[in-house]
Amino acid sequence: MPHTEHAPIAPMLRRDTQSIMLDELRLDSGAIIAPVTVAYETWGRLDATRDNVVLVCHALTGDSHAADLETPDDPRAGWWNPLIGPGRAFDTDRFFVVCANVIGGCYGSSGPTSPHPEDGRPYGMRFPLVSIGDIVRAQRFLLERLGVLRLALVAGGSIGGLQALEWTVAFPDFVERAVILAAGARLSAQGIALNEIGRRAIFADPRWNGGDYPADRGPDDGLAIARMAAMLSYTSADDLAQRFGRSPASRPTSEPSLGGAFDVESYLQYQGLKLVRRFDANSYLLLTRAMDCYDLAEQHATDLEALRRVRAQVLTIGISSDWLFPKEQVRAIAEGILAAGGQALYREIDSRLGHDAFLKEWQHLETLLRPFVADHFVARGPP
Amino acid sequence: MPHTEHAPIAPMLRRDTQSIMLDELRLDSGAIIAPVTVAYETWGRLDATRDNVVLVCHALTGDSHAADLETPDDPRAGWWNPLIGPGRAFDTDRFFVVCANVIGGCYGSSGPTSPHPEDGRPYGMRFPLVSIGDIVRAQRFLLERLGVLRLALVAGGSIGGLQALEWTVAFPDFVERAVILAAGARLSAQGIALNEIGRRAIFADPRWNGGDYPADRGPDDGLAIARMAAMLSYTSADDLAQRFGRSPASRPTSEPSLGGAFDVESYLQYQGLKLVRRFDANSYLLLTRAMDCYDLAEQHATDLEALRRVRAQVLTIGISSDWLFPKEQVRAIAEGILAAGGQALYREIDSRLGHDAFLKEWQHLETLLRPFVADHFVARGPP
Repeated sequence: MPHTEHAPIAPMLRRDTQSIMLDELRLDSGAIIAPVTVAYETWGRLDATRDNVVLVCHALTGDSHAADLETPDDPRAGWWNPLIGPGRAFDTDRFFVVCANVIGGCYGSSGPTSPHPEDGRPYGMRFPLVSIGDIVRAQRFLLERLGVLRLALVAGGSIGGLQALEWTVAFPDFVERAVILAAGARLSAQGIALNEIGRRAIFADPRWNGGDYPADRGPDDGLAIARMAAMLSYTSADDLAQRFGRSPASRPTSEPSLGGAFDVESYLQYQGLKLVRRFDANSYLLLTRAMDCYDLAEQHATDLEALRRVRAQVLTIGISSDWLFPKEQVRAIAEGILAAGGQALYREIDSRLGHDAFLKEWQHLETLLRPFVADHFVARGPP
Repeated sequence: MPHTEHAPIAPMLRRDTQSIMLDELRLDSGAIIAPVTVAYETWGRLDATRDNVVLVCHALTGDSHAADLETPDDPRAGWWNPLIGPGRAFDTDRFFVVCANVIGGCYGSSGPTSPHPEDGRPYGMRFPLVSIGDIVRAQRFLLERLGVLRLALVAGGSIGGLQALEWTVAFPDFVERAVILAAGARLSAQGIALNEIGRRAIFADPRWNGGDYPADRGPDDGLAIARMAAMLSYTSADDLAQRFGRSPASRPTSEPSLGGAFDVESYLQYQGLKLVRRFDANSYLLLTRAMDCYDLAEQHATDLEALRRVRAQVLTIGISSDWLFPKEQVRAIAEGILAAGGQALYREIDSRLGHDAFLKEWQHLETLLRPFVADHFVARGPP
């Protein structure tokens, strides 16, 4: 695979991104990051009562740009663009919506591309392993800095859904409502295996070099292969069959001795190259590991004991064709909360799009989210 | 990933392997390989009437060692060991069982590790793309050389099942019975995608070098990653969950900055390293491509037209948890043959082991195969 040269990927702060700095963050592992930057974006206005805050949590390679004010009608301009804005499910005329870049990532919050305080060079793999709990704790520090002491709602899909779940368990009194999409109590062995295949591809790339590489000469081949493997788990067999089937690619494969390429191969390669241009390989390693290691029951005896802590009203949404977080695992969260005496709903999006439906099935999402989100104000009565 | 040094992998002829040489083989692509070696093993004796021949077709990285006379009770000593032998489903007291190494492979039949006639150096990627049809045609030349003009039965699973299917369509008068396990009319877009991820990992390995590498210094990292990705499709999510779950590995991961490894990761790494010690990366590229490119309908207008050619009695066997060749695709072969006026059965193995059940579920296989295979003699009456 030819190496693609591209501009340095870090920092990738967007114009509207703001950030706070913390003196330090103590991680679940015992490691300390000091100082810590948490980058974020907001939409709407914080009420005087400060009780209209929605936190949305981004997925693995996502960023804080959940919505895009300049092109509100382009679903690709912000990852939840059709759901966030005036009059939308997350109505920015009423809510103050916050999205923070995860620590360990590469979009402005502290991560492997940040300068190490000792030598000013990028942390690389010297950046400690972060957990979903650490990511959530950094978000809480951000909210407190913004003067927010309670969330009207936290929402996220995939690893963002793990964050939403962790919020309800770690800080039960901080969260009124939560939406957990396409996420379960823990990743399956198959999910860990897929992540590991991607990591092996990064490790095997000579340009990875133990995590020590220049920003513009990272392990592009390895990261692209990792992305290709991950993309499989974001789609479904049906979706790939319908979109690509066995159609030939319009361009030849890069390895002529294997003959013409299939369209699905070109698609995956394109997705791989696209990620390489916008993401850091060490961040990819750390965040997939955070995903692997998350276990709802870890600090509690069982899932049920963990879910007994939940005070929020929780909407869980499974996707019929998701095989990364199968719908049964999503449903189990709601059932667990109910069994523990809490309030939870399970809804399902019937879609062939697989895991990524939480970023694509706008009409389904709108229909499910709007009433649940709006109930915040119903419960409060007229202002 | 540390490179593992190992003995040259080619030639890997077993003691009992025999071979024939053909002056040339014209391939579906129009390319010609000359000369061509076809390596094979046999069990049992060829009857004077020469009508007791069973051809078994091996899978992607398999070889001709389907049975092992020295350790008949070790299921791992030959890939169908429990099914082949005196008194077994493929009863070598009655049948003459033949298994040929596929061309394009690395177990003695012509392939990328064979010397190129022009310079005596390994073909590498100068070896032409082979098709399932080419593989089957080489098997036919072998059988004719052995004096066999008709098969009592051909059987195979996965890419071996594609071969068995191709036999029934390409040479309908040559085949009395066929067993097609865990194979369909063509590989899905998802299956092609998985193969492509593996190939990309091989291409990206600097030691691949365009396919030109010494036998003992091939692209081990890339091939191991390819195997890891493929292994996922040979198992099921349920099987991985039951066997490994989220248990920690007994040994630490090779990348300490990511903390302890999960057992499923160690398992995949082990499977990757195991393949590297016994298989050639260029063969892997060519044979996965043969698998991708197989399309029952390619030389016929439709699947039904292709299946109209079948004269054999066909037993198709699907595996309930197979997601590489889902059971519906296996069943469709039998339904197509029946719709075209032929004789076919569909049976299902209810197993959580996934695609690889055709190499593991011995009791199920025995129960399904024995009566179908034995019918050969019933149909003929007493000798």
